[in-house]
Formats: sequence, structure tokens, C-alpha cells
Amino acid sequence: MRDFSHDHRWLSINAATVRAQWPLDRIVDECSRRGIRAISPWRDQVAAVGLERVAERLRATGVELSGYCRGGMFPAMTDTERRATLDDNRRAIDEAKTLGAPCLVLVVGGLPGALAGHPQSKDIAAARRDVHDGIAATLVYAREVGMPLAIEPLHPMYAADRACVNTLEQALDLCDALDPARTGALGVAVDAYHVWWDPKLEAQIVRAGRERILAFHVCDWLVPTTDLLNDRGMMGDGVIDLPRLRGWVEAAGYAGYSEVEIFSAANWWKRDGGEVLDTCIARHRISV
Amino acid sequence: MRDFSHDHRWLSINAATVRAQWPLDRIVDECSRRGIRAISPWRDQVAAVGLERVAERLRATGVELSGYCRGGMFPAMTDTERRATLDDNRRAIDEAKTLGAPCLVLVVGGLPGALAGHPQSKDIAAARRDVHDGIAATLVYAREVGMPLAIEPLHPMYAADRACVNTLEQALDLCDALDPARTGALGVAVDAYHVWWDPKLEAQIVRAGRERILAFHVCDWLVPTTDLLNDRGMMGDGVIDLPRLRGWVEAAGYAGYSEVEIFSAANWWKRDGGEVLDTCIARHRISV
Repeated sequence: MRDFSHDHRWLSINAATVRAQWPLDRIVDECSRRGIRAISPWRDQVAAVGLERVAERLRATGVELSGYCRGGMFPAMTDTERRATLDDNRRAIDEAKTLGAPCLVLVVGGLPGALAGHPQSKDIAAARRDVHDGIAATLVYAREVGMPLAIEPLHPMYAADRACVNTLEQALDLCDALDPARTGALGVAVDAYHVWWDPKLEAQIVRAGRERILAFHVCDWLVPTTDLLNDRGMMGDGVIDLPRLRGWVEAAGYAGYSEVEIFSAANWWKRDGGEVLDTCIARHRISV
Repeated sequence: MRDFSHDHRWLSINAATVRAQWPLDRIVDECSRRGIRAISPWRDQVAAVGLERVAERLRATGVELSGYCRGGMFPAMTDTERRATLDDNRRAIDEAKTLGAPCLVLVVGGLPGALAGHPQSKDIAAARRDVHDGIAATLVYAREVGMPLAIEPLHPMYAADRACVNTLEQALDLCDALDPARTGALGVAVDAYHVWWDPKLEAQIVRAGRERILAFHVCDWLVPTTDLLNDRGMMGDGVIDLPRLRGWVEAAGYAGYSEVEIFSAANWWKRDGGEVLDTCIARHRISV
């Protein structure tokens, strides 16, 4: 297992972590100043600054991407919506290419309409079929241009509104169905927050292996957790045994970044951005 | 599949649903008045009124139990605590016997100290070993007196503080390890709120079969859900396809009560208790 205690060369910052403080070009510069070598931006953050401007700041600073957030959101009630989603995923792949991302992270979507607060269906099996079909269709173009897709299983508390892929086992079943040859075109993003509770986690990480683990995200599960979406904790402040989990993904062959992704409306989003990044660096060395 | 549309003979009320409105003896009487044939009380509700008083009201009204809440909470940091927990589970079994419960529901516990807000460990694997050992020890006495134990897998969002058994598969693995002969002494409580998201749910219900399904709980998953603990919805107000789920448990051989268990700080706990029960009856007929 790699020793993180002396430097932060394997720290990446998911740009959502400081989204409340800074626009993306500033985030790139602030990370670069601190020797943070990688980030993972969200599409809306890129759009707000402009794709070319972001690409230019990445080139100028040498900061690279550990992933691009996000494609997905496949379930829909009509074919018209499904086609629009596929077009949107194609655009996300193009943006990921422009920015040099190693993978496009897929948050696959839940029940149609649920994210907007108006679920139009209770058929989670149908949503899962849409996810299968949507990834299959998106994978064709992703393979053409060489952009790996990383299915991110989300915590089951997001099954209704964000993602109906909720365990690593389920995500790997999709990978095996759609990329049986393990070509590297399709894999998973393992986010500790979403999967730490899973009794089958270690076994499924072994199953995933090096070809399937495209990203590794960290933060912490707070006790108590007061909000389903925006109460993620800083590494070390919660109950996830992050070193054990990293040991498992590294034993499986993963040797990339540990990407810090914290949504924290009541705490970290209210602090100075520099303090947040400095805390991420410090905690990365002792708690990840 | 049984037709619930004409009566509510298979409706049970988990007494937590109206815990804010009434003490338990009143709950028994109010249910009886409405032709609700069963309830599932919590230990603190029984203690507040007195075990003998509750037993007397049940005898007088003919209301029966669909379960008794709850035993469990096995993980601990010391053997002294573990012994105290086993003693407490023994008392819970005795109370369940006195009240004529068909099973004692086990909420198995999470990380030691977490429920009180001060987790003392990040080792969920150790907590799971404590759960295995605690159920094994409790089962000896439960078998002696003939009180089935129903392991309730809780939603993964409760893994840290309430239960580290988080899928039906995991609960059934415990059942197979501790009661391989499927004697009926050990089984599961299937609560729709906790398991609805699980991609392996139908398969695991088939696996459970009639011998293992000791209870079936219903309520609904609201979109959005605003509180991790006390924002459960009335059947029909959320996104769980309850008839489909009941179809699965009935196909597996379950023919008992559908027990309504709603924790709702912002809504149902604030309403008139009679209105809550009448709504449960109405929704049981159309949405369960």
C-alpha cells in the first residue's frame, strides 16, 4: 500500500468540494499553487467558466483530471427524452476528451422525474433497464473516441432520485454484461461514501480488479448525518475506515488518485476555500 | 395474491406510527375500535404503561401482536457490555412471550457508541462478528422458550448507528449460518422501506421462503426525503411499488400481516391519532 503520509502527490480534489467558494478556473489555480496535481470538475462548473478557458488553465498549470463529472441520468418515460439524454452524454464525452479526463463518471439516474421532485414511475426495474440500455448506447461512442466510462454506484439512499445502481456488485454486473472482455472501456468509480457499508465490498473490489476500478473517491460518513445529500464529512471526521478501503483497492491493482469529494452545506462550503484545500491535504496524509 | 381492497383484516399497526399521540393501552383500544386486529409495540411503550396492563388490554380486546420491537444492539467494545446486552435480549424475549408475540424483531446494532453520537470504532466487520455471536447466543434461549427471532435488515443509511445488517441477502446468510435446518426459530423481518432499493430483492425473497419471512412491514419512501430517521411516508405517497413487493413475499409463502411502520416527525406524528389510523386503513386497501 502506498504511503501517503509524506506528500500529497496522489490527492485529487473533486471540484464540488469548493464549488461554493470559487469558479473552476480559480479552483485549478488554487490547487496548482498547493501542489495538488489533479481535480475532477463538474459539467456545470466547466460551462460557467467556459470549456476553452478551463482547458487553458489546465494546460498552463499542468493540473490534470482524475475524472469528469458526470454523464448518466438515463431513465426516462419517452424515447424522445432517451434520445436527448444520449445526445447529452455524447457531449459530456466530448468535453471529457477536450479536458483530457481519464474517464467520464456516470451517475446513472433514478426514477424518471424524481430528481426534480416529481417521480413519474415507481418501476425501478424499468429504470434499471434504461440504465443498461443507455450505457450500452453511450459505450459505442465512448469506445470510438477512447473515453472510458466509470459507473458510480451511489448509496441506496439515492436510489429514487439519483442512481438506481446502488452496489458495486450491481455495477460490475453491468460491466460484465456490456464489456465482458474487460477492455478498459467500462469500469466503476468506487466512492467510499457510497459503498463503505456494503458487506460484500471487499469481495467485489477483488472481483473488479485493476481493469474495472477507474476512480477512487473519499470523504467520510458523519454520525449523525443530518442531510441526505449535503452532509458529507472530511476524512477522519466520520466512521469510514478509509485506509482499510484503500488497501483493498490498491491490492486489486488501483494505483491512481484518491479524489476528495465533499458536499457539505453546513460546514465546508461555508469556510474559506484555502482552508478547505489545506485541510484536504492534511487529512489525505493521515486519514486516507 | 390476497385482495386487500375490501377489508383490513391483514393490517397491523406498528405502535411507533402513533407513538407521539397515545400511550400503548390507548393505541390498543383505538385499533380495536377500528377493527385493526394486530399491532407491534416497542419495548419503551410497553414499559411506560406496564407489561401487565398491556397484556390485559390485548386479552380484553382480542388484538394480537404481529411482532415485538425490539431486541438486538449486539456490537460492543467490552465483554461486560456484551453480557448486559444478552441479558437485555433475554428480557425482551420474556416480554414477547408474555404478550404473545409471534416473533421478536432484531435491530442488530451498528458501530459501538454510534447511536449515542460517539462512535468508538470504525470496524464494521467487528460489529458484524458481534452481531453473529449475539444472535447465536440469544437464539439458545429463544429456542428454549419458543420465540422466533426476526433479523430486520435496515437501510444502509443506518449501517453506522442502528444496524450493520443492511441487505436481505446478508440477513439470510446469518439465518443459514445459525439455523441451517430452517426450523422457524430464526428468520427475517422484511420492511419495504429498508429493502425496496435492492436489485437482488426479489431473488432473496424467493430464497427466504415461507420459513424465513416472519414479518412484513410497509410505509413509503418520500421524494425528497428530508430526514434520515423520521421522514417515512404513508403508503401511496412515495415511490415504493408496495403491491409488487407484497406479491413477492406472498409468492414466497408469507400470509401474515402487512404492518404499517411510519416514523414521521413533520407530518403523521403531528396529526390526530384517529386520522392516522383511518388513513392507514384506507391506504392499506388501495396502496399495499
